[in-house]
Amino acid sequence: MYKLYSMQRSGNSYKVRLALAVLNTPYEAIEIDILRGESRTPDFLAKNPSGQVPLLEVAEGRHLAESNAILWYVAVGTPLAPESRIDRAEALQWMFFEQHALEPNIGAAYFWLSLVKGGRDLQTHALEDWMERGYAALQVMENHLKDHAYFAAGQLTVADIALYGYTHVADRCDFDLTTFPSIRAWLKRVEQSPGFVSMDWQPGPEAEPQARLVAGL
Amino acid sequence: MYKLYSMQRSGNSYKVRLALAVLNTPYEAIEIDILRGESRTPDFLAKNPSGQVPLLEVAEGRHLAESNAILWYVAVGTPLAPESRIDRAEALQWMFFEQHALEPNIGAAYFWLSLVKGGRDLQTHALEDWMERGYAALQVMENHLKDHAYFAAGQLTVADIALYGYTHVADRCDFDLTTFPSIRAWLKRVEQSPGFVSMDWQPGPEAEPQARLVAGL
Repeated sequence: MYKLYSMQRSGNSYKVRLALAVLNTPYEAIEIDILRGESRTPDFLAKNPSGQVPLLEVAEGRHLAESNAILWYVAVGTPLAPESRIDRAEALQWMFFEQHALEPNIGAAYFWLSLVKGGRDLQTHALEDWMERGYAALQVMENHLKDHAYFAAGQLTVADIALYGYTHVADRCDFDLTTFPSIRAWLKRVEQSPGFVSMDWQPGPEAEPQARLVAGL
Repeated sequence: MYKLYSMQRSGNSYKVRLALAVLNTPYEAIEIDILRGESRTPDFLAKNPSGQVPLLEVAEGRHLAESNAILWYVAVGTPLAPESRIDRAEALQWMFFEQHALEPNIGAAYFWLSLVKGGRDLQTHALEDWMERGYAALQVMENHLKDHAYFAAGQLTVADIALYGYTHVADRCDFDLTTFPSIRAWLKRVEQSPGFVSMDWQPGPEAEPQARLVAGL
């Protein structure tokens, strides 16, 4: 069974939890609070020298980093992975877009405005850039979604999961999605997928055995 | 035959040219000078709404963007693509690392210090961040290369091609690789690979037919 090092409120970690939930794949979750330095301990750095979550133990002592590489790995052979060569490449295209155009801007705004107390005052200079570039990325997504239900292969894939991670928290960090109707419709479409769980989701005591495994109980 | 929209001095474009050269795959190259706005024309934006190079036409009217997604696509079924599921995921891990830790820092420094006249004066504030984060990324690479000849699968893969693109221009934009001996040895290893071409490489009039195709002649 997979062991996932993850932070509940991290969009990058949530992507992996969402994919595993949609795939109905059990895993053991270990909460790592990066705000408390738990990803910078010698023990964690031995597993991931980049000191980041999520991190997936795929075999005893073998760890995979980078949220989108983890998504790719867990999706192999499942409906979340496109089948044809060009569809796979187009899914990857959107996943690389996510990591250089969306996550560094909306992800950074979310981190400093929503997670870090007083973060807004620390980052006033950078915020303007994040907003401008974040809106530019949203516009590229909106244009695509005007005539596509999903990002690749005409179906829900790991590309949608990757992009959902930070797009769905955009309204928690000053982004206004009013003028992006196709994005809002797509967010709802993802949320209606079988197995969908929210970022805040944690299983209660009445949860099914698998759900309790998810929480590391 | 592939049609590649590329800028000679762009590290992201060079990655694709390097992979195609190593694979001995012929292609037609079309030079797009982003400094002259050639990636922002209506004609180009119709092909790639993100307005970026490289861009690969994989079939009549079907275009693939994002350098690393293009690398993945052209490498399918070749020795540059790892075979096993975990090796493939580890190659992707390094390719995502390249796009969020290396390219936004060394790539940005290269663009403003080496390509844009007067760029250094425009970017004095950002430069400090790029240097700090760029050196952090180089240290992660150095640590890996201390006991690995390549980044994934124990052989030259698209992960090496992706990382080579901007690492090899680090010394053109203030980065000092003196204290990164494993990176310097790896750079040489990549340069000794069969089919290797430099970023500046352009075929002369005596070039083989395939090489002239590369130049779009």
